[in-house]
Amino acid sequence: MPSPVETVIEALRGALGERVTTNPGLREHHSHGQDTQPPALPDAVAFVESTEEAAKVLGMCHAQGVPVVPWGAGTSLEGHVTPVRGGITLDLSRMTRIIEVSQPDMDCRVEAGVTRDQLNAHLRDQGLFFPVDPGTALCTIGGMCATRASGTNAVRYGTMRENALGLTVALADGRVIRTGGRVRKSSTGYDLTRLFVGSEGTLGVITEIQLRLHGIPEATSSATCQFDTLRGAVETVIGILQSGIPVARMELLDDVQTAACIAYSKLEGLKPLPSLFFEFHGTEASVAEQAQQAEDIAAEYGAHGFQWATDPADRHKLWQARHDALWAVLALKPGYKTFVTDSIVPISRMDEAILGTQADIRASGLTAPIVGHVGDGNYHTVILVPPEPGGLERAWELDKKIVARALDLGGSCSGEHGVGIGKREFLEREHGAEALAVMRSIKAALDPRGIMNPGKIFLN
Amino acid sequence: MPSPVETVIEALRGALGERVTTNPGLREHHSHGQDTQPPALPDAVAFVESTEEAAKVLGMCHAQGVPVVPWGAGTSLEGHVTPVRGGITLDLSRMTRIIEVSQPDMDCRVEAGVTRDQLNAHLRDQGLFFPVDPGTALCTIGGMCATRASGTNAVRYGTMRENALGLTVALADGRVIRTGGRVRKSSTGYDLTRLFVGSEGTLGVITEIQLRLHGIPEATSSATCQFDTLRGAVETVIGILQSGIPVARMELLDDVQTAACIAYSKLEGLKPLPSLFFEFHGTEASVAEQAQQAEDIAAEYGAHGFQWATDPADRHKLWQARHDALWAVLALKPGYKTFVTDSIVPISRMDEAILGTQADIRASGLTAPIVGHVGDGNYHTVILVPPEPGGLERAWELDKKIVARALDLGGSCSGEHGVGIGKREFLEREHGAEALAVMRSIKAALDPRGIMNPGKIFLN
Repeated sequence: MPSPVETVIEALRGALGERVTTNPGLREHHSHGQDTQPPALPDAVAFVESTEEAAKVLGMCHAQGVPVVPWGAGTSLEGHVTPVRGGITLDLSRMTRIIEVSQPDMDCRVEAGVTRDQLNAHLRDQGLFFPVDPGTALCTIGGMCATRASGTNAVRYGTMRENALGLTVALADGRVIRTGGRVRKSSTGYDLTRLFVGSEGTLGVITEIQLRLHGIPEATSSATCQFDTLRGAVETVIGILQSGIPVARMELLDDVQTAACIAYSKLEGLKPLPSLFFEFHGTEASVAEQAQQAEDIAAEYGAHGFQWATDPADRHKLWQARHDALWAVLALKPGYKTFVTDSIVPISRMDEAILGTQADIRASGLTAPIVGHVGDGNYHTVILVPPEPGGLERAWELDKKIVARALDLGGSCSGEHGVGIGKREFLEREHGAEALAVMRSIKAALDPRGIMNPGKIFLN
Repeated sequence: MPSPVETVIEALRGALGERVTTNPGLREHHSHGQDTQPPALPDAVAFVESTEEAAKVLGMCHAQGVPVVPWGAGTSLEGHVTPVRGGITLDLSRMTRIIEVSQPDMDCRVEAGVTRDQLNAHLRDQGLFFPVDPGTALCTIGGMCATRASGTNAVRYGTMRENALGLTVALADGRVIRTGGRVRKSSTGYDLTRLFVGSEGTLGVITEIQLRLHGIPEATSSATCQFDTLRGAVETVIGILQSGIPVARMELLDDVQTAACIAYSKLEGLKPLPSLFFEFHGTEASVAEQAQQAEDIAAEYGAHGFQWATDPADRHKLWQARHDALWAVLALKPGYKTFVTDSIVPISRMDEAILGTQADIRASGLTAPIVGHVGDGNYHTVILVPPEPGGLERAWELDKKIVARALDLGGSCSGEHGVGIGKREFLEREHGAEALAVMRSIKAALDPRGIMNPGKIFLN
């Protein structure tokens, strides 16, 4: 008698033909994301091309109790896409239709496999852009929704929480629902859109997304400044947020990260000191005013070397350097791999968090520069993992300390990468046992057989 | 043998003493909000003073299967606070502590019974304000969360969805959870904060709220302009949104509402034509620039009589007139009551929606000016209810047409007032049977005995 998963694979062959595969190379490709978790093979990979197909796969898996792991681009940093209990990986990367763009509504509807870069290339001619920018160009909108992703300009434009207006979701049992839609707000019932955003494939599979868009600003300028102390940088950030300057990006690099970027990206005029990188969006006049205001505030808190750039080439060089921060770190120690942490604390606790984290890093003996979306209180360390036995364990140990510190300061164990496998152990401490029990009861209500991305978010 | 509700009342007297009452006057006061639904008496009213007391009341009611209706200020327009199945009204209006304000984090934590005005009076000295403004000064933050309220400046500052960072919630069975918190974003598990915001007391009782605050802008200016056609006004709105002008308020008044406001508030320089009222926040320079940009865009679409005001007295007069729109309508027909509708459509469909609604109003023979938070696509009609038999039914009939039109245009039956009793019948059409079933399964998971504000959101 065939096993449940064999039964599903057989049925899938009937429904999808060659788009279901047990090819070892493809299974291996789908066995891990860009994380440090141990990989695990799916029994098969199903490439779906529509919501209906995704729903059909789910219905079959539900009937047989076979796990389903949704897959966008595999860029997860926390093990989200690893099929720890085997089953079917549902690959949505071929669902790349941009279904509709509405200029007057400043929104669009896309399939889950559309990438951020694909979307922005499509929008450029229409004077619109999709702001959420997690750094990688490859990530899919569906994956960004599932992990509640954000990035450098969330301080102004919000995260996927604010920018996903509605969803189509295939539920565990194969039903399909639509949530939200084109309206900007609504007070009619439970906010299912926000429930699925950040649910990491554990409640259903997001197949289409209605996204809020923004007008490409008339003018953009960038600026950098540097501080002798981290505290000066953090106080500048608080001052800027309170002043209401609608800063589009505000990134903190610690001295180690700044040094790495100077070396890797040949940045001129910067010293290896704590730095802030800014971007301002608006009209010509307002961008100039914003930069001036930011400079004045920064000066109050001891900034020096304030430079600002409106020339596109200069701006591009600066933000390319920021986006290449990971490569700059890798270049510090060739042959090492990286482990990226993702803590967030209240803005008022940023200096304690980062100074404490620097002390933890020093005590660990590891190299781990810090770079942060400081307007949100979110900071990453890029830990260089020594290529020797026990190296990865040392990185994990340091991450535990960094997370514990963030939680002590009223923060969260993940600002934007999600829980996946790697952050599950911290959830009860962060949310409390009762809130976690509420999450579990919602999970049980929507996925009674527990087939949706098992082993993620929740321990056991 | 005492009935379940008698058992609960007896137990409540032990726990709350005189703060539980069966006084007829107080029960009557808690039998309805500011709506047109038939009132219904609670069996008793319990005035709680802490989360623990609220949880205790819930635990007792859960054990006996007795309904609980949360009460803030009773300003609901859709019957949310009417105890249609009797039981205990849980009055949170004495929970008025402002627990903490953090200037560097630009947030605060308040008890659910704090009113919007109380909070803003408390914040004024600190250079901060809480922007969400549903028009009434009396509403509580807890009630605003429960209905996902918004108002005139949601176009810039968002609704309660964006401004509630975290909650304390007493669950149906008396457990207490905390959701979210001080961090600006997080990717750790299901978004319980957004699940409870807008749940209208059907999943639990919100007892504390962490709120995002904003810096009081350095400068504020107001402006008005008028159009011969509604289409010109709507096209202006679209142009302004696309240009990225960070308009703080943008309100549309149709010709009837403008005429009523001119008469009631003695507004000078306005004609009885479709009008836009604006407010801009920023620096002196940026406010001037925003007003100029808005004027230029409005002129393209046929605006005339663009006037702008930075003088506080002039600004106050204008916005007071906007906030008095309801009174201006009431003054049109003394002795009439009002019924306020609350539809929302995509911005691109605003002109169809409003022109169609005007036609519906004319066909109904009723007087019903239109005023809208047009930057969100949200518009209200204030129907004057004839004080004669069948008058209310005529108003309801007109509301049904207005809602049906909004739904036809891809809209929602409530932009900000909530579902309560009045909008339940439209929910299946708006969300689909499957999405509604998902909402019901969440309700069943969190409130298995169905004690939480029964008869709201869901039919039956």
